[in-house]
Amino acid sequence: MPKFVYDFTEGNKDLKDLLGGKGANLAEMTNLGLPVPPGFTITTDACRHYLSHGTTPDGLDDEVGDHLRALEERMGKRLGDPADPLLVSVRSGAKFSMPGMMETVLNIGLSDESVHGLARQSGNERFAWDSYRRLIQMFGKTVLGIDGEHFEHAIDSAKEHKGATSDAGLDADDLKQLTKAFKDIVSEQAGRDFPTDPRVQMDLAVKAVFDSWNADRAILYRRQERIPADLGTAVNVVAMVFGNLGDDSGTGVAFTRDPSTGAQGVYGDYLANAQGEDVVAGIRNTVQLQDLERIDKTSYDELMRIMQTLENHYRDLCDIEFTIERGKLWMLQTRVGKRTAAAAFRIATELVSQGMIDMDEALTRVSGDELARVMFPRFDVTGEVRELTKAVNASPGAAVGKVVFDSGTAVRLTERGEKVILVRRETNPDDLHGMVAAQGVLTSRGGKTSHAAVVARGMGKTCVCGAEELAVDSAAKKFTAPGGVVVREGDVISIDGTSGAVYLGEVPVVASNVVQYFEGSLAPDSDDLVRAVHALMSHADAKRRLGVHANADNGPDCARARRFGASGVGLVRTEHMFLGERRQLVENLILAEPGSSARAEALDALEPLQRGDFTEILEAMDGLPVTIRLIDPPLHEFLPDLTDLSVKVALDGDNATDADRRLLGEVRRLHEQNPMLGLRGVRLALTIDGLLAMQVRAIARAAAGLAQAGKSPKPEIMIPLIATVQEMEFSAERVKEVIEEVEAETGIHVDIPVGTMIEVPRAAETAGDIARAAEFFSFGTNDLTQMTWGFSRDDVEGAFFSRYIELGIFGVSPFETIDRDGVGGLVRRAVRAGRETRPDLHLGVCGEHGGDPQSVWFFHEAGLDYVSCSPFRVPVARLEAGRAAVAGGNSDTR
Amino acid sequence: MPKFVYDFTEGNKDLKDLLGGKGANLAEMTNLGLPVPPGFTITTDACRHYLSHGTTPDGLDDEVGDHLRALEERMGKRLGDPADPLLVSVRSGAKFSMPGMMETVLNIGLSDESVHGLARQSGNERFAWDSYRRLIQMFGKTVLGIDGEHFEHAIDSAKEHKGATSDAGLDADDLKQLTKAFKDIVSEQAGRDFPTDPRVQMDLAVKAVFDSWNADRAILYRRQERIPADLGTAVNVVAMVFGNLGDDSGTGVAFTRDPSTGAQGVYGDYLANAQGEDVVAGIRNTVQLQDLERIDKTSYDELMRIMQTLENHYRDLCDIEFTIERGKLWMLQTRVGKRTAAAAFRIATELVSQGMIDMDEALTRVSGDELARVMFPRFDVTGEVRELTKAVNASPGAAVGKVVFDSGTAVRLTERGEKVILVRRETNPDDLHGMVAAQGVLTSRGGKTSHAAVVARGMGKTCVCGAEELAVDSAAKKFTAPGGVVVREGDVISIDGTSGAVYLGEVPVVASNVVQYFEGSLAPDSDDLVRAVHALMSHADAKRRLGVHANADNGPDCARARRFGASGVGLVRTEHMFLGERRQLVENLILAEPGSSARAEALDALEPLQRGDFTEILEAMDGLPVTIRLIDPPLHEFLPDLTDLSVKVALDGDNATDADRRLLGEVRRLHEQNPMLGLRGVRLALTIDGLLAMQVRAIARAAAGLAQAGKSPKPEIMIPLIATVQEMEFSAERVKEVIEEVEAETGIHVDIPVGTMIEVPRAAETAGDIARAAEFFSFGTNDLTQMTWGFSRDDVEGAFFSRYIELGIFGVSPFETIDRDGVGGLVRRAVRAGRETRPDLHLGVCGEHGGDPQSVWFFHEAGLDYVSCSPFRVPVARLEAGRAAVAGGNSDTR
Repeated sequence: MPKFVYDFTEGNKDLKDLLGGKGANLAEMTNLGLPVPPGFTITTDACRHYLSHGTTPDGLDDEVGDHLRALEERMGKRLGDPADPLLVSVRSGAKFSMPGMMETVLNIGLSDESVHGLARQSGNERFAWDSYRRLIQMFGKTVLGIDGEHFEHAIDSAKEHKGATSDAGLDADDLKQLTKAFKDIVSEQAGRDFPTDPRVQMDLAVKAVFDSWNADRAILYRRQERIPADLGTAVNVVAMVFGNLGDDSGTGVAFTRDPSTGAQGVYGDYLANAQGEDVVAGIRNTVQLQDLERIDKTSYDELMRIMQTLENHYRDLCDIEFTIERGKLWMLQTRVGKRTAAAAFRIATELVSQGMIDMDEALTRVSGDELARVMFPRFDVTGEVRELTKAVNASPGAAVGKVVFDSGTAVRLTERGEKVILVRRETNPDDLHGMVAAQGVLTSRGGKTSHAAVVARGMGKTCVCGAEELAVDSAAKKFTAPGGVVVREGDVISIDGTSGAVYLGEVPVVASNVVQYFEGSLAPDSDDLVRAVHALMSHADAKRRLGVHANADNGPDCARARRFGASGVGLVRTEHMFLGERRQLVENLILAEPGSSARAEALDALEPLQRGDFTEILEAMDGLPVTIRLIDPPLHEFLPDLTDLSVKVALDGDNATDADRRLLGEVRRLHEQNPMLGLRGVRLALTIDGLLAMQVRAIARAAAGLAQAGKSPKPEIMIPLIATVQEMEFSAERVKEVIEEVEAETGIHVDIPVGTMIEVPRAAETAGDIARAAEFFSFGTNDLTQMTWGFSRDDVEGAFFSRYIELGIFGVSPFETIDRDGVGGLVRRAVRAGRETRPDLHLGVCGEHGGDPQSVWFFHEAGLDYVSCSPFRVPVARLEAGRAAVAGGNSDTR
Repeated sequence: MPKFVYDFTEGNKDLKDLLGGKGANLAEMTNLGLPVPPGFTITTDACRHYLSHGTTPDGLDDEVGDHLRALEERMGKRLGDPADPLLVSVRSGAKFSMPGMMETVLNIGLSDESVHGLARQSGNERFAWDSYRRLIQMFGKTVLGIDGEHFEHAIDSAKEHKGATSDAGLDADDLKQLTKAFKDIVSEQAGRDFPTDPRVQMDLAVKAVFDSWNADRAILYRRQERIPADLGTAVNVVAMVFGNLGDDSGTGVAFTRDPSTGAQGVYGDYLANAQGEDVVAGIRNTVQLQDLERIDKTSYDELMRIMQTLENHYRDLCDIEFTIERGKLWMLQTRVGKRTAAAAFRIATELVSQGMIDMDEALTRVSGDELARVMFPRFDVTGEVRELTKAVNASPGAAVGKVVFDSGTAVRLTERGEKVILVRRETNPDDLHGMVAAQGVLTSRGGKTSHAAVVARGMGKTCVCGAEELAVDSAAKKFTAPGGVVVREGDVISIDGTSGAVYLGEVPVVASNVVQYFEGSLAPDSDDLVRAVHALMSHADAKRRLGVHANADNGPDCARARRFGASGVGLVRTEHMFLGERRQLVENLILAEPGSSARAEALDALEPLQRGDFTEILEAMDGLPVTIRLIDPPLHEFLPDLTDLSVKVALDGDNATDADRRLLGEVRRLHEQNPMLGLRGVRLALTIDGLLAMQVRAIARAAAGLAQAGKSPKPEIMIPLIATVQEMEFSAERVKEVIEEVEAETGIHVDIPVGTMIEVPRAAETAGDIARAAEFFSFGTNDLTQMTWGFSRDDVEGAFFSRYIELGIFGVSPFETIDRDGVGGLVRRAVRAGRETRPDLHLGVCGEHGGDPQSVWFFHEAGLDYVSCSPFRVPVARLEAGRAAVAGGNSDTR
């Protein structure tokens, strides 16, 4: 017979799956001997059974009855006893906190009879009737599904009748009348009387909590927070204690350290003669926790001792809720507390200093996301700033710019060199080019899964959304903020995607201290946060198995990557060197006939320029490997857009130049329906004579020049878009021929390995074959994700990702975090097959996933040698690689 | 010690891998007691060793010496004996016939001394010197790599000197002089004297044959014929026999049946007093084999007996080469002979009637490609036709049309309803739209791997290429054929892609008898070929495990598919029903705001039209399953082209209509960079309200209507482009809701399974999950190939497939024949994982591969339930499915 009910004395903090977070921690505190009101927990198993069968499991009723009797015995009171009733609360408590999402019913056990007993025992008739009307109100809403407005109306009528301005103006008799009115509402609205049997009250409340797991808002919340839908919730039945029995009573919340900065010392709020709900509702002002020492030194001292006990026991920042009932302290909840990113670093290292945890454990207490947050540039709000509103922090960053209300204007101003913030009620796929152009995006509607939020995060663009206090009027090109502040097109605002704040005017932006430390302009001990980051990064570096390289295309980026801790460059995109002034040379190359002298000239003109680029990069990374990818995109990307040019030539009519006509012919010829799946990558190398040779020659000559000057260049040549080993064989052979030619020409040998991107699904599928001809693999997970899912990122992210996230089809975009099941399956098999063919095959990843925390863990598990990411993500990847190593190293997926 | 040399008495016909085709069959004939000149075979192992190490394997010399001595003993002559020399030929012989590709050296063993012995023994001095000069000439060219022109020049000088018009005009003395001149050429050109040691002659000739395996032309041939590059060739050393020793000598070739029609009765040519080379060179006219009976009855009778023996032994049509030396018959070669497609069917069934093979064996003797060949419409050349030339039969079919010389004209005339043949010197990617428009393509340059050939085969378009006798002058818009016939733009020609013939004017086209039989308009016994096809198709149907369905989008196509033997429709492309007049309705749908009444109206207008389509299809396939795919392509495919419309609006300027401007806005908004990877398939269903419901409603209502009328409609609904099980769950749930609504509305239940295409690599990778929500899979191997390879078929086939085939990266386009390693690997895993989740999962394929013979075998092996292909390919798939079943059934890949 399975056990569905646990007394608090039977559980412990490791049983969160079964007892939920609240129940497990209440049990833990009970077992530590802390003053917890007695009670018991109905398990998530019972909830899951109820949700899938529609009925509670056999035996649950009896088990609950047994635990209730034990509770009554311990308390010396009976539930619903007319003389001295035991009251209980029925509280939800899932494995993961879902604040405000689910239900609670307080004061169960009151009835027309027992309310008198409570009045007598408490010596407070008003309190008793207030407690009773609260029960009926909560029960009516939560269990019976009655619209809360009915009850609010009744309260308002009572106050009006009495001429009172607040609930406090209602006395015991008023509340007694109100209670009767509430019972009438229940009978009318629910078609049944309010149940006076306390056990019936309790059982119905338990089912209502179970049902609340599948309320719409809970489902939505879980999707957003990526909480599995099938966990279910536990239910805690706890003896009521009251903080509202007079001035010797009260309630509070506290943290064992400052959750905002991580500084040591307790921190919290206290409200005398109140219940927890009152603190949340903010009806009266709380006092600082320290003031409790003056109010009730005994309870304060006991609380301090308890908090120390909890921190020592949990070895982490704890947050707690407590109530004092007539001078007696009760602990109502504890858990490991949420904290800011900066606090996380500081707390983790300070717990190490205090001997509570070791450095390995400390690493598990921080995350790459938190590191990224402390690296974002921030607004310097030390001067005078004017905050317009605070809304949803949808995509972090600090952006300043002129307000624009449409994408066309955003693009136009940006082309003029202005910085703009795109402000919209909400965005849709039409706004994509405006979002690309803008510094940041601000919307007045939608949450973290709105179109604006999803697309902005995908782009790494600052975004604040759901700013409902702003009235956006796009037609009039203005928005109105609280207080009637009107902001018009062209006015400057600043938006903080990390905090959600929106400021009027330009708020100065400063680089974070952590970035200044990485840059070398701040010492490792310059402040508490930097000291903590330094200590944890050093430990991560010592522990990690994964190397961290950077994706960088020029000398300065390489130098920064090196300062940020990159031990190589994992991806140089050579096509980036074909832009700007050199575009004309590429155009010449494309327009020249195959085999013509014009083509040879165009290639000859590009070679020294590319050589210069490579020299700069190899010099910046001297002694470290630099993986250079040969040109990847279709050549027509270097030509004008087909539609634009067609319109120009059409409008020019008879006056159209021969050059334009000829160019249009070429653009048409090279136009592709699906350029991502077209003539690009190795296909260019194998069809356009001389292109591969020019690039390889530039690399080999750059390396030879540096070697001659006493440097240690370590270039590696990467062939993109390989789908079959034959392509790899043909191109590697040609690469090696050119390298040998340069060796013959310079008399200098530089070892230049030749490998490939694994970015086409077929390459992953046949990796064992490809490894015969490739000396290394670098997983190009951007393209691999696009082709494995059949997604063109440009096309689909704006078009339907927000809809897919809303539907729960994705928890997160597969372009942000690697899709373990699909793309990940291909990667794992390719790793295995590649190493089988060539045991010393060097394996890395150079898609954007290389800098994503969860993806770094995956690559660690998959057994790659390194990840490569943008220079700014290098520290994040270092930290996560260390965390992955500490957390378990080579898991079963290796 | 491995054995590298086999006497003919030691081998047999099953050792082709080791002894090559020629050697294995010579051994077989020897063991049958047939008169084969003695000899031995050096194995392909020895060749492979030589090719990879550059030297012959240890021990080969001694082994050859031993076999040579044995041969000398048997012949009673010694190699190079001045008195009575043994002469041998050294002949290549690979596993697969590579006619004309590799080398042969005859008359080895002659020298300045032994030539006299040969003269004496043969009593023919001219013959001896002629043999000697032939040896030096062949040896010089083949072994020493001397340009053959030097020898030709010397012969020409000799003839000129003598005043002779042909070789026959040179007497023994002249040939003796010529021999000396030839030896001088060798010394000068090769820098070494012609070796007089016969063993040296032989060893060098053997190596020359080995080397010829890697000659350019051989490599190219193997790529074209998809013969593996690492097989190597065997070398046969055979005692020479001479057919040119007088009128009692001669040589011939023969077939045991007519290889053109398959009719019974021997068939062949004979040439008296000649060697095999003379027959090939066509210097003199041959006589019919039957005439040999008159010339040399003994030999003729023996030959007839031998041919009967061979056919009984090989149980198939054999072709042979023989020589009669002074009345003694010698068999020089035999093999299972090539035949036309029609002959293949007839021979296979007639061998069954004659009790030589059974029906299973007969099935292995024909192929789907052959069936397709006898199904092509053919030109009726019984009337008067004028053949202009005959060139490479690059892509089969019979096409008639007006000649055009550029793609623009091809498109323009086609749009006017004219039929055209595109004639080019060679095609390039620019010609793609012209090729699409034309009935057929004719080029004057390039072979079977040229751009024109590859692209035309990919499109299933008739193509004749490499018509070098035609002088194409595109600028003047004409071509000139042999005899000075000038064909100008607009003149009609007919091209036969099956034979390579090009005719002037319109040659009438007739459906093949086989197609008329499938159509039911010819009886199964109406001619020999139809009778054979009928018998073999019946047997294939009885044996095959794979079902064969058809891809068809309307009633008539379905009816034809059914007549051709389809047992269901595997793919109805519903978007095909959105073309033509209905395009406007789709445009309305796209232009309507989401949720607007205009959108609902557009959907309401489409529903009855779709319902009508489905009713027609389900009625035509009554009682058989019909898999209907919901709309797949991006909606903008139904709107005007972005560039065209942009140009129009720009040119209209201020006069542009509001409708056009609005349309342009929508076209821009919906424009995608990579539509293949964009908003299409299930993504449309999940983002465009009402679209899925409209289509499902039309299907369910059509089915209900037919069921009500007493029919048995069996629709299945297929969701395209599924990448993840969540998409499948959401869409299947919605489909089922709509079906239930229709059931409630009509009161009629029709079982409608819901499944998916597996066409996105991720779907294959996570097929086990997807099978939880899908009742069937249909592999969409077109898209799966595109995404797995990262190829957009439209973009790359013309752009570089011919180059890739030339390089040997593909043997064949992966769009023609399934790529077993890459795409095939995904398919096999998906089959396994899908069936693990759902053992009764129904599995099919609806890509074009479903009608490709090699691919059908793969799908059989992979364990699919059915293949689906275009109606015309249904018989091919039926035949190949039968052949696959007979050939081994469930192979290890299952």
